[in-house]
Amino acid sequence: MKNFKYYAPTYVEFGKGTELKVGQLVKQFGGSKVLLHYGGQSAIKSGLLATVEDCLQKAGVEYVKLGGVVPNPHVSMVRKGIEICKQEGIDFLLAVGGGSVIDSCKAISAGRYIDQDVWDLYLRRAEATRFMPIGCVLTIPAAGSEMSDGSVITNEEGNFKKDYGSDGFRPKFAIMNPELTFSLWQTACGVTDMMMHTMERYFSKDDDMEVTDAIAEAILRTCMTEGVKVLDNPTDYNSRAQIMWAGSVAHNDLTGCGTSGDWATHCLEHELSGMFDVSHGAGLAAIWGSWARYTRNENLPRFARFARNVMGVNTQGMSDLEAAEAGIQAMEQFYRTIGMPTNLRELVGREVTEDEIAEMADKCSNYGKGTVGFLKTLYRDDMAAIYRLAK
Amino acid sequence: MKNFKYYAPTYVEFGKGTELKVGQLVKQFGGSKVLLHYGGQSAIKSGLLATVEDCLQKAGVEYVKLGGVVPNPHVSMVRKGIEICKQEGIDFLLAVGGGSVIDSCKAISAGRYIDQDVWDLYLRRAEATRFMPIGCVLTIPAAGSEMSDGSVITNEEGNFKKDYGSDGFRPKFAIMNPELTFSLWQTACGVTDMMMHTMERYFSKDDDMEVTDAIAEAILRTCMTEGVKVLDNPTDYNSRAQIMWAGSVAHNDLTGCGTSGDWATHCLEHELSGMFDVSHGAGLAAIWGSWARYTRNENLPRFARFARNVMGVNTQGMSDLEAAEAGIQAMEQFYRTIGMPTNLRELVGREVTEDEIAEMADKCSNYGKGTVGFLKTLYRDDMAAIYRLAK
Repeated sequence: MKNFKYYAPTYVEFGKGTELKVGQLVKQFGGSKVLLHYGGQSAIKSGLLATVEDCLQKAGVEYVKLGGVVPNPHVSMVRKGIEICKQEGIDFLLAVGGGSVIDSCKAISAGRYIDQDVWDLYLRRAEATRFMPIGCVLTIPAAGSEMSDGSVITNEEGNFKKDYGSDGFRPKFAIMNPELTFSLWQTACGVTDMMMHTMERYFSKDDDMEVTDAIAEAILRTCMTEGVKVLDNPTDYNSRAQIMWAGSVAHNDLTGCGTSGDWATHCLEHELSGMFDVSHGAGLAAIWGSWARYTRNENLPRFARFARNVMGVNTQGMSDLEAAEAGIQAMEQFYRTIGMPTNLRELVGREVTEDEIAEMADKCSNYGKGTVGFLKTLYRDDMAAIYRLAK
Repeated sequence: MKNFKYYAPTYVEFGKGTELKVGQLVKQFGGSKVLLHYGGQSAIKSGLLATVEDCLQKAGVEYVKLGGVVPNPHVSMVRKGIEICKQEGIDFLLAVGGGSVIDSCKAISAGRYIDQDVWDLYLRRAEATRFMPIGCVLTIPAAGSEMSDGSVITNEEGNFKKDYGSDGFRPKFAIMNPELTFSLWQTACGVTDMMMHTMERYFSKDDDMEVTDAIAEAILRTCMTEGVKVLDNPTDYNSRAQIMWAGSVAHNDLTGCGTSGDWATHCLEHELSGMFDVSHGAGLAAIWGSWARYTRNENLPRFARFARNVMGVNTQGMSDLEAAEAGIQAMEQFYRTIGMPTNLRELVGREVTEDEIAEMADKCSNYGKGTVGFLKTLYRDDMAAIYRLAK
């Protein structure tokens, strides 16, 4: 087992009615003046935003509202948030929403304290050493940002989607009430995303982290079982609760302890959602099978184990290659069951052109200067080949 | 799924050579003058203590040494530690050892700041609101104290063993190098203890926490597989690593999210190790089967699930009662395989007397005033019946 660090300090309040503790938690973690950051209309229409405001007022916490965060959150919104924090003397960031809103908060949190523009962080031209504290009321289980150290921001001038991570980004607290997710229509995308967070860590060259593997396989099986239940019955509290908690555990690093992880699928997908503005989860489903077939020879026994332990394939009598293929097909069948695409045509609604593939491979490889992936190191031409395989 | 809180803020450094980071981590978490707390000779003989001292010196951290913590750690040692902290202006507690040393640090951490005697905390006559920060270099994976909120202290005047818990007890950092456990002979007890931390949470009346159950079952299976490997080959780094990490995850509350838990077996065992000074792990193994047979009717389907998913029993065609019994027997067979006792005669080496049973039931029930257990509430006579069943 490889050496590892594990650090998941976020205080989680999980269950019915927990959003009512938001004021108290902001105070407990040192907030006195809050930037209340949220997305579109759903938090307003559902009444959640009003509830949060009421709780903050009752706790004697001041706040300034900043709504309008979009999926694949924009750096222009982050810059606006940073300005408000400076002008208003904000000392705490509160995200009400999903991964996009939390990621926007994370960028503000670090951008507030650097001299350069915040986008320089995402270009690796600056480093964050100081952070504003963040709390969140989660409404979309998927990205796992509520306990993770990562954030992904899109620079809308040029459709660049980049990530930056630091332990300083990990939220101080996360409030998770599964009831707040009853009206979600993005469940299939969310389930795909949280499963992929686990799979990115699972498909490595390391084969000696049994505790981590066993936990990862348990989470993946549960996501599939409970995901299907939620799609059948969107107000099934218990299944919503399993999905919500699985999403956090899938991305708080527990499923990566002792592994090197891969993360190529995420990188390949970032270009898809950057270029076509599709949902991150759908993009992951559309590209994963092609990534898996392109890289599986690097560790066939692991793909065979995935087939057996996660997908429930009876691999007796199969070669590792046959088992691996059966596992990948079973995963794609699951994606179809929950309405996810398994290729780019299904994702985008038309054939993706060679020019588009070239542009995505260029961006993903930083114009040929960079690589992605650890199971198999992917160069620009590998990336293009995988996009082509997924057409 | 029941509402729950999850809070496991401990920063974990896991793997080979990580003990060399101890000085830097103490400083990072605000320590400038440390109480270096440890047990008997093993930390000295192995050279670990000298290594830790060297790292502290290099980091410019002052320290005062206090060794001699015994298994089932004594309140008299805690009082000594508190005195030293006050006299010497200690601002950080560093445990080098296993659960006993860490628990002794926890008691010092809270006892340092209350006006009353520290034992009053464990008698629930005082409450801790302020804590000294704690770090640890773990050498015995078992108790899970390195990430938990709990501590167990023995008042040697009267053999009272009591617990106290608070989030303030959770260590700031835990250094875990599996190589430091190569010479451990208590592996079987440790594996039993960490499995029981998971089982105490698993055997509840709640049946709707699938993510948590799946993780718990994964950890239990891994403990058994890897535990046997470690007993065969004590210097198998990878199996030692699995066991070490499983021990932390088993008790950092992850396996209890959404469950009410039971904890009667731990309470019954505390009286056994209090009276006979046996190892906690051995005491748990000796009493668990009897507890399980006494209480299983409260949730037979769960015991049957345990038989299937953890013990690998083929329960097809069995009633839930038959499956439950088969699972309990399989667990007892595993205990025998690793050299653990499955009754009190094997534990103590002679027949336990009715007087001794009466005294243990008295103490465990706080002389008839208290109960233990949530799966089935156990009164004094239930406790005596379980001890008798285990004779």
